[in-house]
Amino acid sequence: MKRERWQKNFSEWFNDILRDADIMDTRYPVKGLYVWLPYGLKLRNHVFAVIRQLLEQSGHQEVLFPLLIPEDIFRKEAEHIRGFEGQVYWVTHGGLSKLDVKLALRPTSETSIYPMFALWIRSHADLPIKVFQVVNVFRYETKMTKPMIRLREVTTFKEAHTAHATWEEAEAQVQEAVKVYQRFFDELGVPYLITKRPPWDTFAGAVYSLAFDTLAPDGRTLQIGTVHNLGQNFAKVYELKYETPDGKQEYVYQTCYGISERVIAAAMMVHGDDIGLCLPPKVAPIQVVVVPIPFKGKEAPVQQIASAVANELTTAGVRAHLDDRDVRPGRKFYHWERRGVPLRLEIGPEDVEKDQVTAVRRDTGERQAIPRNALRNKVRELLETIDGDLRARAWKSFNEMTHEASDVETAKGLMDRRGGIVRMPWCGDEECGLELEERTGGDILGEKFGGEQASGICPICSKRAAKSVYLARTY
Amino acid sequence: MKRERWQKNFSEWFNDILRDADIMDTRYPVKGLYVWLPYGLKLRNHVFAVIRQLLEQSGHQEVLFPLLIPEDIFRKEAEHIRGFEGQVYWVTHGGLSKLDVKLALRPTSETSIYPMFALWIRSHADLPIKVFQVVNVFRYETKMTKPMIRLREVTTFKEAHTAHATWEEAEAQVQEAVKVYQRFFDELGVPYLITKRPPWDTFAGAVYSLAFDTLAPDGRTLQIGTVHNLGQNFAKVYELKYETPDGKQEYVYQTCYGISERVIAAAMMVHGDDIGLCLPPKVAPIQVVVVPIPFKGKEAPVQQIASAVANELTTAGVRAHLDDRDVRPGRKFYHWERRGVPLRLEIGPEDVEKDQVTAVRRDTGERQAIPRNALRNKVRELLETIDGDLRARAWKSFNEMTHEASDVETAKGLMDRRGGIVRMPWCGDEECGLELEERTGGDILGEKFGGEQASGICPICSKRAAKSVYLARTY
Repeated sequence: MKRERWQKNFSEWFNDILRDADIMDTRYPVKGLYVWLPYGLKLRNHVFAVIRQLLEQSGHQEVLFPLLIPEDIFRKEAEHIRGFEGQVYWVTHGGLSKLDVKLALRPTSETSIYPMFALWIRSHADLPIKVFQVVNVFRYETKMTKPMIRLREVTTFKEAHTAHATWEEAEAQVQEAVKVYQRFFDELGVPYLITKRPPWDTFAGAVYSLAFDTLAPDGRTLQIGTVHNLGQNFAKVYELKYETPDGKQEYVYQTCYGISERVIAAAMMVHGDDIGLCLPPKVAPIQVVVVPIPFKGKEAPVQQIASAVANELTTAGVRAHLDDRDVRPGRKFYHWERRGVPLRLEIGPEDVEKDQVTAVRRDTGERQAIPRNALRNKVRELLETIDGDLRARAWKSFNEMTHEASDVETAKGLMDRRGGIVRMPWCGDEECGLELEERTGGDILGEKFGGEQASGICPICSKRAAKSVYLARTY
Repeated sequence: MKRERWQKNFSEWFNDILRDADIMDTRYPVKGLYVWLPYGLKLRNHVFAVIRQLLEQSGHQEVLFPLLIPEDIFRKEAEHIRGFEGQVYWVTHGGLSKLDVKLALRPTSETSIYPMFALWIRSHADLPIKVFQVVNVFRYETKMTKPMIRLREVTTFKEAHTAHATWEEAEAQVQEAVKVYQRFFDELGVPYLITKRPPWDTFAGAVYSLAFDTLAPDGRTLQIGTVHNLGQNFAKVYELKYETPDGKQEYVYQTCYGISERVIAAAMMVHGDDIGLCLPPKVAPIQVVVVPIPFKGKEAPVQQIASAVANELTTAGVRAHLDDRDVRPGRKFYHWERRGVPLRLEIGPEDVEKDQVTAVRRDTGERQAIPRNALRNKVRELLETIDGDLRARAWKSFNEMTHEASDVETAKGLMDRRGGIVRMPWCGDEECGLELEERTGGDILGEKFGGEQASGICPICSKRAAKSVYLARTY
């Protein structure tokens, strides 16, 4: 597995693969808006099917709220609007007339969902509420845009919203959300660091924010999921009150947590190589491609068995594809390797003779013969092995890119030369934190979720470190 | 099956069922925007899974285009913009700044998709293109809005778009689209009349439009699907040219066809009764509800078997739900009947003794004992029977509501008293058509797709009828 171009010209690698692998067309005539192509959209649907299932299994119900939010309702939570004001698209006209009330395109849906929560919540018996939706959201990005990563229309945003009777229950919900997300990223084999974001990087309106970051091949981090404890901030603004068992009116406690199509970019990146994609079998649109290798005079049995093999796998629930186009096998190999199909089954005259197929793994290139009568079980087993191996390999790279530093120069040097994530001591003061960011050129991701022992001294003020903090160049 | 309220107070029936069956919350604070609730959203997802599958089986590929369309590109096709101008929402501001180019929220996606087609189509080898997407679209409706039927955000619009080398191929595509839609509505058991719309009701930019109409319980028609032959109208505006095998540049021929969440309203309406919904098993979120009927002292075996029955069905791929709440069975019955669950399985002490379950059909109320060892097959068989019976019953009602008239007074009288669809002779002149609409108070749906013999004379001008035309009060 070669990873030169993948690492050194990552941006180019990513853009090329979007086009060559039929993922996305980036030529739509508005900045920051892109077109999902068929293969890419299938990948997206498989990825989001996984998170949907995990959320449903943990008692979340799927709903769907409108895109448009009236300005007066949108502006109610002061922090929230301050956080989003610069990024909101406004609809001002309907047909030929000016609207009485401007409508925001949701940048996120707290302000469309919570006024309805106010109608749904009467008593403690109505709690908890745990809902989610998968929707398009809009941000007027003025920075450089990038497909799937920094968008003006996020086409696929999974946002969950919950309401609880007590702070403790909201805290427990945060824990559950983290577990669901861990499980989700594990299924995709995408490694992550979970941190509690510093106050200046907390979601607008939240008490605190947790975030999952992974690493792009160029050593910059990519935020791929966030979990927010909203406390009673929104509840007080949108009047989300419930009657307690002893008849008192209390505000609810809330959490929300989101994952966007960025996670698809992450899955494409962390497993890729110079040839192209290397998709985790769990979400690959095609898990197995069957390629007949006909030799003169032996075309018929090869074609016939290739077709039977593909059918057998499809019937067994494997996403198999028979490539019986009239082109050279070598071209087919490259075509499917570039698109990241995890397993290729070749069927040539020798395989026919020996009643076997030859399996080739995309991730390792390893070849092995599979007896025809063990096909289904062996293919399933191989796909699982590949899922596990991809995950292990990705975590290994990720861990190798996590460094330690105790002073500004070392931290900056590490990020300049190698990228990745740097852990260092910090006193915990905002002023020092901001200076640390400025002098290292990195962003503070935060302190590790779950807590971590601090040691050493703050490299800015030389006071004893209160925290270990993680920094990185970020997307 | 009682259908008094269903018919006489249909609007009330519909609104009540949206709320009581957990389909939709209509209290969102913007006119024409609604919230999909969990049960409703599941219904929606099952319905659209059916059309997705049918489209994929017939060689359509799913894509996803941006919501926002720049004004200059949107305005290129003159007819099209005239048709939609009064209905388009405009985004004029991003953050705190005014946009250089206004952005339309797509009311439909011809103008976002076809500029990309121009990049995709080079030669005859690139044709045909057959894509579809399922997206939210927006219409600034000034008339009375109604959930799922007349909306400002159509949350679920399936639109297919195709490009072909010749007029004949586009015509063949229209035929295929009609077949796909027929099959789709048949699977939902929703009856329909297919007509070619009159020129004044043709899609803005199309050569001609076909439409599927069904009937609401109040006797008004509901347009549930459209198929348009666009000819070269858009191709000429968006420069969709291809090189023919002999090296000439030609414009492509196009079709497009759409189905919105209206079809869900249709499925709810046509099968409903005074108790509530009666959903076709094919798309019911819950196909079978299992209700234990415990008697004092015999709780344990009843619960145990109920649970085993539900598990067995779930494992077999049936969408089964065990209702083991601590409420009276009668209340459970009503709860699930109102939500339209097609089949109820009761398990009481007698059933335990006889090693059977008691099945009750939602549509007929019919009860029957099913031996425990025949459970899976018998349930599957019953669900299929119900699908077929619902379809047959709906078509019977539909046909009974199709009338004949040869003069204006009869036509008007039929529509006034009974509603439904009226067939009558027409000379074919637009002037007479419009007068016919005005004097009968109905809309001309069009002439029957596939052609139909005309007879009689035009009731307006008394010339010999060139066509048989269908009229109705419409939604």
